[in-house]
Amino acid sequence: MKIIHTADWHLGRILNGKSLLEDQAYILDEFVAAMQKEKPDVIVIAGDVYDTSYPSKAAIMLFEETINQLNLHMQIPMIVTNGNHDGKERLNYGAKWFEKSQMYIRTELATMATPINIGNVNFYCLPFATISEVQAFFDDKTITTHQAATQSCITYMAENLDTSQFNVLIGHMTVQGGTRSDSERPISIGTVESVEQDVFAPFNYVMLGHLHHPFSIDSEFIHYSGSLLQYSFSEVNQPKGYRMLLIDEMEQQQLFIPLEPKRQLEVVEGDYEAAIQEIIPLKNKENYIHFKLKNMTHVTDPMMHLKQIYPNTLSLTNVSFNFETASVENNTELRELNDSEIINNFYQSMTDSTLSELQHKKIVQLLNDLLEGEE
Amino acid sequence: MKIIHTADWHLGRILNGKSLLEDQAYILDEFVAAMQKEKPDVIVIAGDVYDTSYPSKAAIMLFEETINQLNLHMQIPMIVTNGNHDGKERLNYGAKWFEKSQMYIRTELATMATPINIGNVNFYCLPFATISEVQAFFDDKTITTHQAATQSCITYMAENLDTSQFNVLIGHMTVQGGTRSDSERPISIGTVESVEQDVFAPFNYVMLGHLHHPFSIDSEFIHYSGSLLQYSFSEVNQPKGYRMLLIDEMEQQQLFIPLEPKRQLEVVEGDYEAAIQEIIPLKNKENYIHFKLKNMTHVTDPMMHLKQIYPNTLSLTNVSFNFETASVENNTELRELNDSEIINNFYQSMTDSTLSELQHKKIVQLLNDLLEGEE
Repeated sequence: MKIIHTADWHLGRILNGKSLLEDQAYILDEFVAAMQKEKPDVIVIAGDVYDTSYPSKAAIMLFEETINQLNLHMQIPMIVTNGNHDGKERLNYGAKWFEKSQMYIRTELATMATPINIGNVNFYCLPFATISEVQAFFDDKTITTHQAATQSCITYMAENLDTSQFNVLIGHMTVQGGTRSDSERPISIGTVESVEQDVFAPFNYVMLGHLHHPFSIDSEFIHYSGSLLQYSFSEVNQPKGYRMLLIDEMEQQQLFIPLEPKRQLEVVEGDYEAAIQEIIPLKNKENYIHFKLKNMTHVTDPMMHLKQIYPNTLSLTNVSFNFETASVENNTELRELNDSEIINNFYQSMTDSTLSELQHKKIVQLLNDLLEGEE
Repeated sequence: MKIIHTADWHLGRILNGKSLLEDQAYILDEFVAAMQKEKPDVIVIAGDVYDTSYPSKAAIMLFEETINQLNLHMQIPMIVTNGNHDGKERLNYGAKWFEKSQMYIRTELATMATPINIGNVNFYCLPFATISEVQAFFDDKTITTHQAATQSCITYMAENLDTSQFNVLIGHMTVQGGTRSDSERPISIGTVESVEQDVFAPFNYVMLGHLHHPFSIDSEFIHYSGSLLQYSFSEVNQPKGYRMLLIDEMEQQQLFIPLEPKRQLEVVEGDYEAAIQEIIPLKNKENYIHFKLKNMTHVTDPMMHLKQIYPNTLSLTNVSFNFETASVENNTELRELNDSEIINNFYQSMTDSTLSELQHKKIVQLLNDLLEGEE
């Protein structure tokens, strides 16, 4: 039994104004070619197929063509669940027809305890859901944390788990201690979003999405596949690819297999003149580059000059120009705060009083509504 | 053989700021119930499933649930083609999976000459396409009218037509002499959009969408089903429903079957006081009403007062208040002009010169781009 685990495709992602669709099409071609060689028994996508709940025409066409190759041409069963970026109704469109070709799309809590059996493996999908959706599902207002929500779901699934089988959980969440990247949108504001590894104990293996680093956590049986591509400059040097799980009667084995992208993200540091004279050290001129340059205060429109030589320059920081206050990027203290804390601090510094409980509640509600991207 | 013909559902349509989705869900329930009794061999939807190329979540969920009932639960084969309001890529999403359950979605010119055979009937879909798409398909720049575009397509289809079979054409267009309504968006600007009935001669029967009146044209073998609901006040008193075609070895028979909507559109004329005192003659207080009232110049916010009594009031015209110039609504001359002619006349009245050929071309291009709703 050969199982492929991928996640966080984020189709349609735009990074610093640049659409990454061409890079996504390229890497998906590589992925499809790899699957042609691997001939897996099933492919799992653990959420965030799309970058937005309202994906563009081009993004849905890229997804459709990719699953057409994998599921219809190669006849590989596929299991897809939603992440926090996906609009579940749009991702789920046509699911009943797709399922007839073993293309399983699961976005509803209602089906979490109904496994998909492929080979001798039971796959359980825990679709991404907000705390209030989990509250509503169990009719239990005491569920107020992601830890409690996940625990409730797993307890519910575990009730009828056939422990003589190999049971795989597919989910999209933050596991405690995981390495974070800038491109993971927070799951919710105002609550601790991570869940403890212990909750997954009833399962033999856990395939996760959300964290973009493929080695986010250190566990024998819980794994993130990582994202399809580097999606923020905080992911520079992170390997990207997919995971493979091999199970036979005797043992199980899992490994991470990297894929080579068309362009990588690269941070290039040095002198502005060295960059312009092309003597600055860098890996590839075609990469998506974030320049951090010195000695450029005299230059008019340095970005334009850089783009003429490095066409995929996405970002430029002038490192000689130091404000008295630390920049956001280097302000570790600020970076560790969440959005509602930043708003609270700002309010305090402006008014000398703190937000009332009601004000705080309203702001958290507003931030969560924005996150959920309701139409 | 029993064939149901419907078209112009316009799911997600908003009329004067009011979403008609609830009414659409209601009438589709009626349609599904009718199909439960009719048990047809096939249902054809001749374009304009959606009102926009980028339909809302609610609109796609209503479509999905409706075809789930018809195609999966009742196992009725369905054929759907796109209209000028549909975004063809979004409508076509998942088509290869849908087709395995005899849910045929056809939006590409490439498949127009490939019939769908159900029973002893061949169904040919001519998806809605712009003139430039037809030009590109045949690599023929001499195609410059809708008449020529349709003629080219039908000649191409006719080449391999098996005339011993009953051949049905499904299309979305304006046939010459058809009755127009205000809710049909023009197919293109700057060209005559209607096609002559003669072009359809190779086919035994033609099922059309686009014109909203079910008795738009007078023909033995060419029929519009009309729209699902009244979609503009110009459609008041138009019956709405579906068509049925019965074919046996001896003969064919076709009929229009009306469906009763939750609310109709109604134009109510009379005195403002009579409306407020509820003594004005009308069919149903819950209808979507366009009031044309006299003696209301003294009233502050008459619309608010009317809505308190007639909650679905959508429009109000003060008929005692006559401008010197005729209103747009009553200006027959203006109503017969198309958008580019209106712009040209405006330009002429403002500048005393006419649009240059280049200016005219640019405006027509702009209007057509708007019509095609490119993302």
